[in-house]
Amino acid sequence: MDINADAGESFGRWQLGNDSALFAHITSVNLACGFHAGDPLTIQQSIALAKEQGVAVGAHPGFYDKVGFGRRIIQASAAEVYADVLYQIGALQAFLRVHDMRLHHVKAHGALHWYALANADICTAIAKATQNAGDDVPFVALAGTKMVDVAAETGVKVIREAFPERAYMADGSLAPRTLAGSSIHDPQEAAKRAVKMVTGEPLETLDGGTVTLQAETLCIHGDNPEAVTIAATMSDALNAAGITVKAF
Amino acid sequence: MDINADAGESFGRWQLGNDSALFAHITSVNLACGFHAGDPLTIQQSIALAKEQGVAVGAHPGFYDKVGFGRRIIQASAAEVYADVLYQIGALQAFLRVHDMRLHHVKAHGALHWYALANADICTAIAKATQNAGDDVPFVALAGTKMVDVAAETGVKVIREAFPERAYMADGSLAPRTLAGSSIHDPQEAAKRAVKMVTGEPLETLDGGTVTLQAETLCIHGDNPEAVTIAATMSDALNAAGITVKAF
Amino acid sequence: MDINADAGESFGRWQLGNDSALFAHITSVNLACGFHAGDPLTIQQSIALAKEQGVAVGAHPGFYDKVGFGRRIIQASAAEVYADVLYQIGALQAFLRVHDMRLHHVKAHGALHWYALANADICTAIAKATQNAGDDVPFVALAGTKMVDVAAETGVKVIREAFPERAYMADGSLAPRTLAGSSIHDPQEAAKRAVKMVTGEPLETLDGGTVTLQAETLCIHGDNPEAVTIAATMSDALNAAGITVKAF
Amino acid sequence: MDINADAGESFGRWQLGNDSALFAHITSVNLACGFHAGDPLTIQQSIALAKEQGVAVGAHPGFYDKVGFGRRIIQASAAEVYADVLYQIGALQAFLRVHDMRLHHVKAHGALHWYALANADICTAIAKATQNAGDDVPFVALAGTKMVDVAAETGVKVIREAFPERAYMADGSLAPRTLAGSSIHDPQEAAKRAVKMVTGEPLETLDGGTVTLQAETLCIHGDNPEAVTIAATMSDALNAAGITVKAF
Repeated sequence: MDINADAGESFGRWQLGNDSALFAHITSVNLACGFHAGDPLTIQQSIALAKEQGVAVGAHPGFYDKVGFGRRIIQASAAEVYADVLYQIGALQAFLRVHDMRLHHVKAHGALHWYALANADICTAIAKATQNAGDDVPFVALAGTKMVDVAAETGVKVIREAFPERAYMADGSLAPRTLAGSSIHDPQEAAKRAVKMVTGEPLETLDGGTVTLQAETLCIHGDNPEAVTIAATMSDALNAAGITVKAF
Repeated sequence: MDINADAGESFGRWQLGNDSALFAHITSVNLACGFHAGDPLTIQQSIALAKEQGVAVGAHPGFYDKVGFGRRIIQASAAEVYADVLYQIGALQAFLRVHDMRLHHVKAHGALHWYALANADICTAIAKATQNAGDDVPFVALAGTKMVDVAAETGVKVIREAFPERAYMADGSLAPRTLAGSSIHDPQEAAKRAVKMVTGEPLETLDGGTVTLQAETLCIHGDNPEAVTIAATMSDALNAAGITVKAF
Repeated sequence: MDINADAGESFGRWQLGNDSALFAHITSVNLACGFHAGDPLTIQQSIALAKEQGVAVGAHPGFYDKVGFGRRIIQASAAEVYADVLYQIGALQAFLRVHDMRLHHVKAHGALHWYALANADICTAIAKATQNAGDDVPFVALAGTKMVDVAAETGVKVIREAFPERAYMADGSLAPRTLAGSSIHDPQEAAKRAVKMVTGEPLETLDGGTVTLQAETLCIHGDNPEAVTIAATMSDALNAAGITVKAF
Repeated sequence: MDINADAGESFGRWQLGNDSALFAHITSVNLACGFHAGDPLTIQQSIALAKEQGVAVGAHPGFYDKVGFGRRIIQASAAEVYADVLYQIGALQAFLRVHDMRLHHVKAHGALHWYALANADICTAIAKATQNAGDDVPFVALAGTKMVDVAAETGVKVIREAFPERAYMADGSLAPRTLAGSSIHDPQEAAKRAVKMVTGEPLETLDGGTVTLQAETLCIHGDNPEAVTIAATMSDALNAAGITVKAF
């Protein structure tokens, strides 16, 4: 089982997150590629840090929107999204090659992820860019959604992801952040949910039902001040359940 | 002998140059990588066009300055230049791989080129980024300048370039554009100079001396309305002198 | 009756449109403010040209999206839209003051306009930014849509606009560009429609009905190669109908 | 005597500085205008905060270079600098008008300031943009340098500035940050220097001489973690010396 988090989200003079502390507790990282966050020097330094701490590096392409941090959908065409994602992946790969590392996965960031969830052609565009990046790089899709199938149709390898810190709805979607209880703040509770998400046990949902996921990677929020504690607690719980925590 | 020109310099809605007409008369192209010009979709389309017309594709990294078209020196550090160049090269390579093409060369654009001419550490930074791009990609340096030696010290393969449409000074530098006679507008004259630049015959300089170059690639200006005529005339003159025109 | 067109859409090295020829046939201009097109030097030059040719200058704020030319909706919040629009208006006003000119109107560009048509809070945000720009600057709204009323509720002065070169639907909306017949290419036909749009005569719509508009300004597309002919023909037709063509 | 500091340097998701704590101890602020830092929403919020805390607001235009935080000279032309600065000033003024505030001063940021120090035509361009902003807005120049005279020649009102936390050279320039002792970290020492800078007493310089300044505003570095202590200590020392601390 893999635990991933977003990183490399600083930009020039502006620092964000504590990547070094976080890297000690996760197995793979989604690295900002310079469109919504990050810049060439930050990418270089983040990859050096990930190598040093033994963390696998995935690409986290986003919308070209720094002031919005990639959190606003830009109604781009599928052709634009494909080219934007391939561009970002390629840029990251150049830095990985210098460190004799391979790209571990591709996962859409923020609003690009939401856009792909809502539009099959956008999901397909990102999956194809991932596939065209070569090396059989897997595409990360939200477990329990049609993203999994839409992406798989392109022939790309798909990895299913779940969010232990987020509440779900019975239809498998993440509970909107505007709902009370949409975020799980207790590390012990998040760790219990993590185990269920991996073993396929049903999870109670915010709308009073249950949902069953079968995740291959778990995402934690690196910009949460508690991220380090949550990652450590989750890792312990998974180990205790006999699940090895390592990059897929 | 290779004839190169800048291309892929459109940006979103804004078109620049007539790449398709130009590609018929040159053997390699310096493709804008999205920092000073170009964008992911433009890169994709330019590479498809280059493949169709049998033109080799090099990277043309520049300063991150679209409004200035990369023609203003930004006093960046060598570390910033290295990372910016590697980022741009990597982005381009991703699109080339999709077309089963290899990166043909790397050549700095505009003010980044001038900055490298004036600063050895900047030249070294660009040469190292080129070397780290892999595949033994050559770095294009201005023939007759110290760029050639500075770049070679990094171990990168160096290709010497000359400009048949530009007048030179006796010290091997290009005549400043502010001087009368700095540009050669007559295609026949440019073609004659092209042959001398390749065969190593002395060229008269604007300051009354001579200079001898030994170029492996000749650059023509794609944004010149006469570019197509110049390229064709030059190509004929080189062929007549027994020099085969093809990508190095 | 005012005839307006977009202008100042060049960006750095990239030229777009023929503003000088266009300005001879229109009475007011919607000037790009540097977010979707234009840049400070272009704004300065466009305003000097407008003053010279006696054309009134309005602001044409857009999304911060040059590569998309402001033609892709960015799902920004109303607070972001308000601040982005006020920023762009203020920048333009500084150049107008240097030429002793006043801001003539504010009109949202491209996708920002579509976003305002679909979302009352976005329309309100742009109207408030316009009102806060001072000098009783009017806000341009699409005649026959709820934009007119939504904007008016803020207290801003509203000017109704119609598009003689575009077909309409019976509900008052512009016919989607994907429909056959959505654009009127014949200058005589566009001119006839212009007169009806001003006098309030019913117009046949693409879906077989009619619509009655009461426009105070007519917009023509400056990037149409026929724009100069269309503007001249329209101007003549309005004059012939006894309607004076001048900035409102 | 005025004490100024840079502020409004956050950008989108990225926070920088503690403006609210800082504003309690200074009398005027140099607000980032969205080119090197800041964005429309940040400008709006910073101005609201400044009004609430009774701090005068100046514009702090910089190079269009967020990733470099405006700390790298871009070799722009004087015409480009003039237009870029006027654009930024105008944008800021629109937000000030909404709060019934007037622009207090204009001061170039970072590398734009260094560029103006080294090039008279750049200094003139910024001074003219300031003058054209209207309202008799003063231009802030480094006391003891030719910036003061060059700017004054345009007819703009000039305010001389000194840096109590920075060591000087005998020629009146700031000691390069690469020299040991170039920064004054002791608040008491900085406060003593502040008094001398205002009263015109000679200051010992890092190269063993003395320099006499006659400043009308003192700048402290807002991104220094000690900024609040330094501002308070300096304010007390000036008051003790019978100098009233308030915006000029």
